[in-house]
Amino acid sequence: MEKCSQAPEHVLLVDCPDRPGLVHAVTGVLFRAGANVTSNHEFVDAETRRFFMRTACDGLLDAPAVEAAVAAVLPEGAQVHFRRAVPRRIVVLVSREHHCLADLLVRHAYGELGADLVAVASNHEVLRPLAEKFSVPFHHVSHEGLGREAHEEALLALIGPLKPDFLVLAKYMRILSPRFVSAWPNRIVNIHHSFLPAFVGARPYHQAFQRGVKVIGATAHFVSDQLDEGPIIMQQVIPMDHSYSPHDLARAGRDIERTVLANSLRLLNEDRVFLCANRTIIFD
Amino acid sequence: MEKCSQAPEHVLLVDCPDRPGLVHAVTGVLFRAGANVTSNHEFVDAETRRFFMRTACDGLLDAPAVEAAVAAVLPEGAQVHFRRAVPRRIVVLVSREHHCLADLLVRHAYGELGADLVAVASNHEVLRPLAEKFSVPFHHVSHEGLGREAHEEALLALIGPLKPDFLVLAKYMRILSPRFVSAWPNRIVNIHHSFLPAFVGARPYHQAFQRGVKVIGATAHFVSDQLDEGPIIMQQVIPMDHSYSPHDLARAGRDIERTVLANSLRLLNEDRVFLCANRTIIFD
Amino acid sequence: MEKCSQAPEHVLLVDCPDRPGLVHAVTGVLFRAGANVTSNHEFVDAETRRFFMRTACDGLLDAPAVEAAVAAVLPEGAQVHFRRAVPRRIVVLVSREHHCLADLLVRHAYGELGADLVAVASNHEVLRPLAEKFSVPFHHVSHEGLGREAHEEALLALIGPLKPDFLVLAKYMRILSPRFVSAWPNRIVNIHHSFLPAFVGARPYHQAFQRGVKVIGATAHFVSDQLDEGPIIMQQVIPMDHSYSPHDLARAGRDIERTVLANSLRLLNEDRVFLCANRTIIFD
Amino acid sequence: MEKCSQAPEHVLLVDCPDRPGLVHAVTGVLFRAGANVTSNHEFVDAETRRFFMRTACDGLLDAPAVEAAVAAVLPEGAQVHFRRAVPRRIVVLVSREHHCLADLLVRHAYGELGADLVAVASNHEVLRPLAEKFSVPFHHVSHEGLGREAHEEALLALIGPLKPDFLVLAKYMRILSPRFVSAWPNRIVNIHHSFLPAFVGARPYHQAFQRGVKVIGATAHFVSDQLDEGPIIMQQVIPMDHSYSPHDLARAGRDIERTVLANSLRLLNEDRVFLCANRTIIFD
Repeated sequence: MEKCSQAPEHVLLVDCPDRPGLVHAVTGVLFRAGANVTSNHEFVDAETRRFFMRTACDGLLDAPAVEAAVAAVLPEGAQVHFRRAVPRRIVVLVSREHHCLADLLVRHAYGELGADLVAVASNHEVLRPLAEKFSVPFHHVSHEGLGREAHEEALLALIGPLKPDFLVLAKYMRILSPRFVSAWPNRIVNIHHSFLPAFVGARPYHQAFQRGVKVIGATAHFVSDQLDEGPIIMQQVIPMDHSYSPHDLARAGRDIERTVLANSLRLLNEDRVFLCANRTIIFD
Repeated sequence: MEKCSQAPEHVLLVDCPDRPGLVHAVTGVLFRAGANVTSNHEFVDAETRRFFMRTACDGLLDAPAVEAAVAAVLPEGAQVHFRRAVPRRIVVLVSREHHCLADLLVRHAYGELGADLVAVASNHEVLRPLAEKFSVPFHHVSHEGLGREAHEEALLALIGPLKPDFLVLAKYMRILSPRFVSAWPNRIVNIHHSFLPAFVGARPYHQAFQRGVKVIGATAHFVSDQLDEGPIIMQQVIPMDHSYSPHDLARAGRDIERTVLANSLRLLNEDRVFLCANRTIIFD
Repeated sequence: MEKCSQAPEHVLLVDCPDRPGLVHAVTGVLFRAGANVTSNHEFVDAETRRFFMRTACDGLLDAPAVEAAVAAVLPEGAQVHFRRAVPRRIVVLVSREHHCLADLLVRHAYGELGADLVAVASNHEVLRPLAEKFSVPFHHVSHEGLGREAHEEALLALIGPLKPDFLVLAKYMRILSPRFVSAWPNRIVNIHHSFLPAFVGARPYHQAFQRGVKVIGATAHFVSDQLDEGPIIMQQVIPMDHSYSPHDLARAGRDIERTVLANSLRLLNEDRVFLCANRTIIFD
Repeated sequence: MEKCSQAPEHVLLVDCPDRPGLVHAVTGVLFRAGANVTSNHEFVDAETRRFFMRTACDGLLDAPAVEAAVAAVLPEGAQVHFRRAVPRRIVVLVSREHHCLADLLVRHAYGELGADLVAVASNHEVLRPLAEKFSVPFHHVSHEGLGREAHEEALLALIGPLKPDFLVLAKYMRILSPRFVSAWPNRIVNIHHSFLPAFVGARPYHQAFQRGVKVIGATAHFVSDQLDEGPIIMQQVIPMDHSYSPHDLARAGRDIERTVLANSLRLLNEDRVFLCANRTIIFD
């Protein structure tokens, strides 16, 4: 298994209606193409009756030809991707909190992020020195004096040319409009500092304190039109007790926020995340 | 520390407005009374400025006299209890699911529950054989043909004479009226099969499946007038993935539901749980 | 996915040297046999270069014929099993502690164990009433006055005719001889009350206390000739602090011991556990 | 409670043989000195019969006078410290791995470490750029061509004048001699990449892989003469499965190594850690 010891050369991704014989058909194409399969995952979602498959393989392969050949043995409407496993480009959006960004920068600097962190954009200046320590371009796109629409236009004008595969909201504290979100369907990842769906919206640690929970969490999820309602990629929790103030909860929570966000990006970058209704299928 | 290796003979519980010198004053009373303190916990809640203290001690003590002497050194309005550490009486309410009840019965049978399980009451017959295996009286109080009020009257008529210290809802699937709840203020404990406040109400595992969470939980809490809104005593979680159906979530969740419920009762029975606003202070 | 919502009708298990095309070959046999595959897992162990596969399927199938046909497309020396998914027979060995046995009995009584608990055997009488509450035969095989060999002979004479698929040591406190173990290769499961390989041998909670660990664990593993050295099936841990006496550690540990043991048996009974060197491959 | 929302002005630490009336006596001294107690923890170790107490307080206090007055009411041989809560000085030793150091540097840069990270020393040059990004002095003390004794002399010559309160081994891969360790009794903290006492010594992730554990851990502990045998401060674990290579285990483990180390330093810096036999008492 490649896992992450060593990236595979290619990854095949299939998402289609289920029917008998799919695995046999797909693996037949790969076998005939001379692919050396290093890992294979399949799943059929009982609710939607969709079939999901991820196959990592090595070998001298003609990617477009393999993709077409796989598509030819699948039901109509199948989504098939066969791509070289190259790092994805990400742009990170931040506001004032440093911990998630710092974590991504360190992993990036040491080749552990998987992705290529091409730029940081922020509505504040405060994290510029951090990004620049790691030689990652930092762009300040102030929201001062701008309406949301105008601010998002400015962001889009900056981000568009960078051609990111994913936008990563690493404690970006502004709500994105449906219009902005729709420009990056299922390509914006957010880290929310609660165990969603508990404590949607602002100040989740204060909400958690008031509710007196004994466990707090962090959730990485895709951003959709509905605030904090997008498909969940990863969640992690830590125990709490009555002695934690909201400030303590925030401190403790930072340790899981950054871990959850970075590991979610690893999954995304390795093409391990499929969408199914408002849920994710994750082949890890 | 006594913890649970060996129950202490007495427990002192204090809940009062904070002011300097409280620990010194209270421990002075105990020292002069000849108490041998085996453990001591204090906490001041920053929000309410209330002081909480639990002291376990041994020795030949005149409990009412000690209680009065402690009260005399505390601010007005202090709640003081000094009591012999005897097992509390509990009545367990169930519906059809056996796993929490079975767990409580086994612990009770082997002296590990801490509490005295005096009876089981249910709106169904199905768990009678289980209770009777362990020689615990089982009372069927059917709700058929009765309105909620009449059913609760019947329950109260049964439970009242049993003089329980706590009512334990071990997967009791009917919602209790505010009138019923008010008869046992902060003395009804429920196990809810989610990580509250996520998935309040019915069918939390189905809700969890639809939302696609990656962690599920169980919550033991006091029952208040607001459904699933009472103070939380204990929470525990387990990781999930996309392959779990709602049925699988329910199966996996049972393992934590019963553990959380039983351990919450241990805390209650050992007088380790204080209420503070809608939160609990737990000295474990 | 069947997971456990609904047991599949058949399970195919393959363990063989890896080579290209195995998945294609095996799924081809199943497809041609008219099997309806409901879940599929494969793994190649990087160290041993062995290929493992578990496929659950439904359909009117001739099991021996399918097994032979699968074997025919695999490398020499392949282990292939295609079997109807019927509950396995287990015999449980205990000594004096009740908590794991009680848990298995309750799950068995409510159809949640997956396995068929055919008998309990013990070197003590103390748990007889518990087994008999649940109408499971209890056999006292005293070790008093017997050497280890003679005692094991007596055990074997009892257990052999019961034809169990697995022996389950649910806090059985005697060490089994290599001779006994070799009679049930990889078919004896033990629950050890520590996070192995920490605290091998006797009194692990006392060892844990002395070492001052901040986490304790439980380990379900196959029994091999080497004490506590067999392949690990499942482990679970819980946090500790300095206030836990060895007695408290034991109490807290019981909650995970029984959960780990029962869930390990679910995995075994559903044919989800493969052996690979001294490790397990688990398709859950 | 101060926890970490706001550092207290002073902390009182008591470690002495237990006897009745200690809490009363100590709190009496503080009350008469006009201290405003913000949190209070006590514990009596059942095995050693020693009493431990940590009290955080504010107020215009004459620290040496309070310390002397507390000592006067305690049994002979009591260890009493009453000190202003100022950040401790730490020197971090590293080899080639960056993740723990990066984490400490980021926390330090943003005022979240609690301690004052005065220098980094290493037997390699490779982490110099990382330390220098954060303007922390980096000292290369090569071991090449030196025996262990000579190398440690060089280290001591560097570190001594820096007057650290604690030495932190953040993946420092050389074993320290008893002579070196004895120069900093209970003041050297190490992060070990396993759940001690499992996998003592070199290459714990390879050991974990070979043993086939289903959980891996990280342990922060004081360094003593015995390799990996010193008192444990904090441990954390994460679940594993068969698909993790040793390389994957190492990657996953890094997430907990750095979190455990940083949080252990927070505990130390806030004077929350007491030693008792080979165990720690932690008031958090």
